[in-house]
Amino acid sequence: MKVIEYRPTPDEFAWTFGGAAPVRRVRPGEALSVWTEDCFAGKVRSERDLVSQVCEFPFLNPQTGPFHVEGAEPGDTLALHFVSIEPATDIGAATTVPFFGALTSDAHTATLQEALPELVWLYELDNARRTVTYRAKSAELAIELPMDPMHGTVGVAPAALEARSSLVPDSHGGNLDTPEMRAGVTAYFGVNVAGALFSLGDGHARQGEGEACGTGVEVAMNTVLIVDLVKGVPTPWPRLESDAYLMSIGAASPLENAYRVAQVDMTGWLSELCGIDRMDAYQLVAQAALAPVAQVCNPIYTVTSKIPKSLLPAGPAYRGKHAELSEQAAVLRSA
Amino acid sequence: MKVIEYRPTPDEFAWTFGGAAPVRRVRPGEALSVWTEDCFAGKVRSERDLVSQVCEFPFLNPQTGPFHVEGAEPGDTLALHFVSIEPATDIGAATTVPFFGALTSDAHTATLQEALPELVWLYELDNARRTVTYRAKSAELAIELPMDPMHGTVGVAPAALEARSSLVPDSHGGNLDTPEMRAGVTAYFGVNVAGALFSLGDGHARQGEGEACGTGVEVAMNTVLIVDLVKGVPTPWPRLESDAYLMSIGAASPLENAYRVAQVDMTGWLSELCGIDRMDAYQLVAQAALAPVAQVCNPIYTVTSKIPKSLLPAGPAYRGKHAELSEQAAVLRSA
Amino acid sequence: MKVIEYRPTPDEFAWTFGGAAPVRRVRPGEALSVWTEDCFAGKVRSERDLVSQVCEFPFLNPQTGPFHVEGAEPGDTLALHFVSIEPATDIGAATTVPFFGALTSDAHTATLQEALPELVWLYELDNARRTVTYRAKSAELAIELPMDPMHGTVGVAPAALEARSSLVPDSHGGNLDTPEMRAGVTAYFGVNVAGALFSLGDGHARQGEGEACGTGVEVAMNTVLIVDLVKGVPTPWPRLESDAYLMSIGAASPLENAYRVAQVDMTGWLSELCGIDRMDAYQLVAQAALAPVAQVCNPIYTVTSKIPKSLLPAGPAYRGKHAELSEQAAVLRSA
Amino acid sequence: MKVIEYRPTPDEFAWTFGGAAPVRRVRPGEALSVWTEDCFAGKVRSERDLVSQVCEFPFLNPQTGPFHVEGAEPGDTLALHFVSIEPATDIGAATTVPFFGALTSDAHTATLQEALPELVWLYELDNARRTVTYRAKSAELAIELPMDPMHGTVGVAPAALEARSSLVPDSHGGNLDTPEMRAGVTAYFGVNVAGALFSLGDGHARQGEGEACGTGVEVAMNTVLIVDLVKGVPTPWPRLESDAYLMSIGAASPLENAYRVAQVDMTGWLSELCGIDRMDAYQLVAQAALAPVAQVCNPIYTVTSKIPKSLLPAGPAYRGKHAELSEQAAVLRSA
Repeated sequence: MKVIEYRPTPDEFAWTFGGAAPVRRVRPGEALSVWTEDCFAGKVRSERDLVSQVCEFPFLNPQTGPFHVEGAEPGDTLALHFVSIEPATDIGAATTVPFFGALTSDAHTATLQEALPELVWLYELDNARRTVTYRAKSAELAIELPMDPMHGTVGVAPAALEARSSLVPDSHGGNLDTPEMRAGVTAYFGVNVAGALFSLGDGHARQGEGEACGTGVEVAMNTVLIVDLVKGVPTPWPRLESDAYLMSIGAASPLENAYRVAQVDMTGWLSELCGIDRMDAYQLVAQAALAPVAQVCNPIYTVTSKIPKSLLPAGPAYRGKHAELSEQAAVLRSA
Repeated sequence: MKVIEYRPTPDEFAWTFGGAAPVRRVRPGEALSVWTEDCFAGKVRSERDLVSQVCEFPFLNPQTGPFHVEGAEPGDTLALHFVSIEPATDIGAATTVPFFGALTSDAHTATLQEALPELVWLYELDNARRTVTYRAKSAELAIELPMDPMHGTVGVAPAALEARSSLVPDSHGGNLDTPEMRAGVTAYFGVNVAGALFSLGDGHARQGEGEACGTGVEVAMNTVLIVDLVKGVPTPWPRLESDAYLMSIGAASPLENAYRVAQVDMTGWLSELCGIDRMDAYQLVAQAALAPVAQVCNPIYTVTSKIPKSLLPAGPAYRGKHAELSEQAAVLRSA
Repeated sequence: MKVIEYRPTPDEFAWTFGGAAPVRRVRPGEALSVWTEDCFAGKVRSERDLVSQVCEFPFLNPQTGPFHVEGAEPGDTLALHFVSIEPATDIGAATTVPFFGALTSDAHTATLQEALPELVWLYELDNARRTVTYRAKSAELAIELPMDPMHGTVGVAPAALEARSSLVPDSHGGNLDTPEMRAGVTAYFGVNVAGALFSLGDGHARQGEGEACGTGVEVAMNTVLIVDLVKGVPTPWPRLESDAYLMSIGAASPLENAYRVAQVDMTGWLSELCGIDRMDAYQLVAQAALAPVAQVCNPIYTVTSKIPKSLLPAGPAYRGKHAELSEQAAVLRSA
Repeated sequence: MKVIEYRPTPDEFAWTFGGAAPVRRVRPGEALSVWTEDCFAGKVRSERDLVSQVCEFPFLNPQTGPFHVEGAEPGDTLALHFVSIEPATDIGAATTVPFFGALTSDAHTATLQEALPELVWLYELDNARRTVTYRAKSAELAIELPMDPMHGTVGVAPAALEARSSLVPDSHGGNLDTPEMRAGVTAYFGVNVAGALFSLGDGHARQGEGEACGTGVEVAMNTVLIVDLVKGVPTPWPRLESDAYLMSIGAASPLENAYRVAQVDMTGWLSELCGIDRMDAYQLVAQAALAPVAQVCNPIYTVTSKIPKSLLPAGPAYRGKHAELSEQAAVLRSA
């Protein structure tokens, strides 16, 4: 399998989905080995580097890409299989940012209150032990959390001639901020424009569900992914497939709408896969789906609907694309 | 340990939290062995028993209780440890109800559309194999789902002189509909009135997160629980403790507010338990908390915040009450 | 017309809708002349009387009532016509309260931020000139606002065996906090329990739409109202009728649901009154209805849908009850 | 005053704010006389022209523009004064569109229900009598509503390198759908990119508050507006000024956030204009502001905060720009 190496220079980052020229062309079936910068554009390096002082809006969430996928057309589905997502440094940073996050008023949940204190927490990453170490500031307390690397932003150019900030999620993907976007997962996105024009970034060494403070443990990533297409099959909202789960991601505000979007999408998907009508699929979703919150800090919120594949008698989703790409990934990893 | 047996007659059910006279008095440290009717008051027995025809609003979610707990006063915390929650029958029912559920318009998300079809699905319960069997109506498809019994409603009399329908959750508990309310868990509720006046009902053989269709797999339950008090310790929102997790439950609409309530409560709880300030606790919650949706079908929605206890260096919550009650439960189970 | 005078003693106030014994019985067609205490139970008398210090939760929004209406049964509509609503003092108070109000985080829109400053503004009321004078604290600035007296809370005992705090609005009325609840208006409420058990309180010399700071210009009121019934006609959500407008009030969160409830109710009402189907009524509402926000500070929000009666060719609503009561009110006022 | 005439050809429409090349350059102080196509791109001409059949997503809400304003830079405010907004035809159309509108489930408030019927209502416009005639389909009923012409979409290129669909409102303006955007009003927008790049469209002969069915009475418009700049003065959210009112428009979901944004912006604005601190301004807003819902049908909702200018002792907003432009408009109208 051809593996294309790509490491962007600072002037090559994209800051939007849509509206940016492709940096490379890839063919379905090829792999990419890329480096992604952290969400702060690398500018938070110590506890004194406050986002409001060192970062410049909107230059956050720098995207590696976009990549033009040969042959991708509206109506197709782009499949991205994450072979590996590995922190590129041994320090990750999490911050509060004034009026940003789930447990503060923000630009839309607008109040007259003062902002929370602006702080930086640095986490030590141990790739070998797979840990991410939290250290409290107000007491002697260190906690080793499991490392669980993921990308906060992955997506394609949106429909309707739009260009969307890489800080925002929507049906094109973008800043979905779900911890499910980890290695071993295949992500599916509906293609809206010729070439799909996907990009990725915003690596987290881990994050809690909801990304409550507005950031995960932010870190640059070395990521290998296989790029593929499912021709002629549309995908209305971002979907994920792991060895264990089928997942739909809803992006909307208020948060119940993100839940509804994800569950309605899952209902339609199960209806197709299981050959049952929508009411039967609704019932199955109602009793079998997990629904973890993904993020509640960006202008549009996200929720994931998850169904264990072990429950389903169904044939494979997307013509078996996940199994196929997982096998190729195994070959790549063993190479 | 004294175990009080109680099986309500149909005229003994309560339909509200608050506003109902106690059916029994119990002392802290005593156990209760109770039977709870299903949410339909037992009236859905076949696929032809449509809720809109056989049930009479507001006589849904019949409560076993309320129980007056000797010595419980406002400012205390009631601890209920679930020793066992076992389906009392071998058939469970799940239904759609016109204009009720997460994936339909309802009384508050009001639209002009027609209701979804009203249907009943019957599930075979196998207590030995611990399965709950879903059967599609539109195709030959049967799926064995794991049995995971729980109570949808558990709570105390609310504050502010209120009596709340057993269909509604809030800070007093009530119709929380979280699958985390299972055997082995200790539930904590702030006491609002003398005697606490707790009740329970709405057993589910299992449910998906969000209870999307408006019901779980509804079933009468035989439940054993130990009743205890933590004197002088208030609890602002319902909390759960299992061997593995600390959990806070937020109840509010829109759903992001349920998330916020749960996460703010967890932040305060971790701050206390770990001896760190609120910003440090916020950071820990942001990177370590899980946040599954509980329900999105009642008039007030619920989200659970979950923190793995294994991560915490902290001393025990509520003076070690969960460990203490778990030991007593083990004795009861082995008796 | 018989006018019943009633002035509650402090121990006669009700603090809930439902769950309180009636203080008087009235017959349909009789008038009541009552005094209502202000929302602070009279405890905010100077700028130094902070709500968090002088008031005791839940003893806010004291209700005058409930009144048992002879012959009122579930399925009927209670009609209350406000003959006059007049401030009983010449000073009104508005306050901020920690974590209460639309432009602060609160118990449900929970954040980790500090509360806004707690302040009291006293307003001079001039009944003759019909003005309410605002005075800034931070500068020499006085502004005469138009006096526009109203009741924040009016309602009946709720359905489903509930008792609801007088701080909360819902389909039973309660703390609706709409400035449309003024003299000259007929308010319609569906009766849920025998006798209806209505009460009222929370007078405002005026309020902005949304009651952003959590209070209006709060004042005790002398109010005269005529009590009547429309037998056999149900009313699902509170409705108002003035000489100029038909109004429906939706109570729900998030706020779009309050809008939806109000507009769906108005659609059904216009469909009946105009003899058109629901889609035609939807269209008429879409192009002709006003939709002012009522309040965004209580746990459940409210929006009013308003249709100018001048547009409607329709026969009178509620069998002409508003015109009938307006005539009687004119007689009372001239007496 | 120079008046630039501009009538776009069909291939000159823009479908986004941002991402489109300017069609003309104008200087501050110049007037534009433009024609705007209706939201359906002129394709709904009879009751048989259903949007789902004759329109092609995303080619809705065609924009006349964008116009490059000489000298406009980020940090400035663009002032657009509407001299006249006059229907260009004598028939307006309003429609339902499947899964679009406030009283139906939609792409985000997703449910499994069937769509409402898709219908077209044609309205007769009488420019002389200033009426818009509604005709029911299900009965013989015609109602003359007051003509009140306005633009649903007006805005500038957004910040953050974005291009936003003309179907969406946000801080850049766009599909605000407030009936307050009428002749005699000055609209203020913060400039995000050099030249501001404003455009307009989506004329309504009138609309109800909330635009419940998803459209107003849609019509092509002949509009004259004066273009001006307030250099060095930023404007965070769209604002309007009429002879009678100052207005701030919040755009956010859920709807309470649109309310919060509008009221927080108005609080800041009054604080500046009146020389009072934010708490005093909050109090004034709380008692004096009107808050009509603008729209509840687009992916982001809008609410307007309105303060009567007659109440304010304050000096003029934006250096008196509204009065200045109103005088010039009077000259233009008399010319």
